Amino acid sequence: MSNTLLTPRTRLARYPDRGSHDREIIHRILDEGFVCHIGFVVDGQPYVIPTAYGRVSDDLYLHGSAASRMLRTLEKGSPVCLTVTLLDGLVLARSAFHHSLNYRSVVVLGHASLVTDPSEKLAALHAISEHIVPGRWAEVREPSERELKAAAVLKLPLVEASAKIRTGPPADDETDYGIGVWAGELPLRLETGDLIPDPSSGNTVPVPDYLRNYSRRR
Amino acid sequence: MSNTLLTPRTRLARYPDRGSHDREIIHRILDEGFVCHIGFVVDGQPYVIPTAYGRVSDDLYLHGSAASRMLRTLEKGSPVCLTVTLLDGLVLARSAFHHSLNYRSVVVLGHASLVTDPSEKLAALHAISEHIVPGRWAEVREPSERELKAAAVLKLPLVEASAKIRTGPPADDETDYGIGVWAGELPLRLETGDLIPDPSSGNTVPVPDYLRNYSRRR
Repeated sequence: MSNTLLTPRTRLARYPDRGSHDREIIHRILDEGFVCHIGFVVDGQPYVIPTAYGRVSDDLYLHGSAASRMLRTLEKGSPVCLTVTLLDGLVLARSAFHHSLNYRSVVVLGHASLVTDPSEKLAALHAISEHIVPGRWAEVREPSERELKAAAVLKLPLVEASAKIRTGPPADDETDYGIGVWAGELPLRLETGDLIPDPSSGNTVPVPDYLRNYSRRR
Repeated sequence: MSNTLLTPRTRLARYPDRGSHDREIIHRILDEGFVCHIGFVVDGQPYVIPTAYGRVSDDLYLHGSAASRMLRTLEKGSPVCLTVTLLDGLVLARSAFHHSLNYRSVVVLGHASLVTDPSEKLAALHAISEHIVPGRWAEVREPSERELKAAAVLKLPLVEASAKIRTGPPADDETDYGIGVWAGELPLRLETGDLIPDPSSGNTVPVPDYLRNYSRRR
């Protein structure tokens, strides 16, 4: 299997120096995120919907209600774009023009297909769950046959994709470095707050380690 | 002006109880976020690209290089979808099936147009900057005429939009509440890290309050 996901459509025209088509770099970004934005087209109108995803080797999996417009559109084989964006910081330059963001993003193009094999479907749901909260699946009730039927699972093979990454300080114009304004980076990251127990539970179950130490950093 | 941004295309088919078309609720979500995902179509293929935005009353503004494929496509009046997603937490249920995410999202549909009037263009860039880092614009060098020409600014009027919000604990099946697994919410939020001064600066400029106290909560 080729290590590059470069195709004419995923070639980067803007800031190609920030881009990559390397499979490992793309996997790493996909593994740190867990909500993607799915683009699909209905009657010429693009829609962009946030949803969770999982990865098994070079396949991405999505799930949802079999009745959702997004899943009904995608399972027909309509072209899809899956984008994951990790926001790493604000880049504070000395001129308004050179302000920027530090980020890592992946754009995947392709066609999804409905997963019909029950064991692949269960494996995909397991992968999505473990992608979001590793360790959770083994503790909770597994999907019943009825629940498995109600869920639609789609597979999007990772064939055509690009990553884009910006890191580091601002790049100001030479003549602006003397301006007496604070310049640099303000890092941003997704952090957890204090766990909120379900008021319906007796609060007697101890918090498992995989929740106490939860982090998205990979 | 109507207070609802409901149209047949922004009616919510899935979980309508989580939805809203109220202008104020939509404004609030748009003001807390600052990176949107833009969906547009080229040769039948949807693309989803993350980018910053600003809001002035009922207009959203985007900016970028005049040469970018996204801006060139949008300025032709192609249909666009702008989605903003705020991730608020993981919802940990007792069954795999009822796991969910707490979030607030807005989907805006419409057509963007190129801003050509220089004063509206400057006002839009000011709005985008103040939307991301309030207080910054007054301190930094304003765009030069050459920079203003190199930047393309697009306006997307807020006419057709929906919000979707999930909050609160998991909703488990009645028969699952006895399962002895920790259930509840793990809150997530975008937090700032320690400021990183640009190594090119002498480190002599004090950190302004608007950076020291930076927060996305609105």
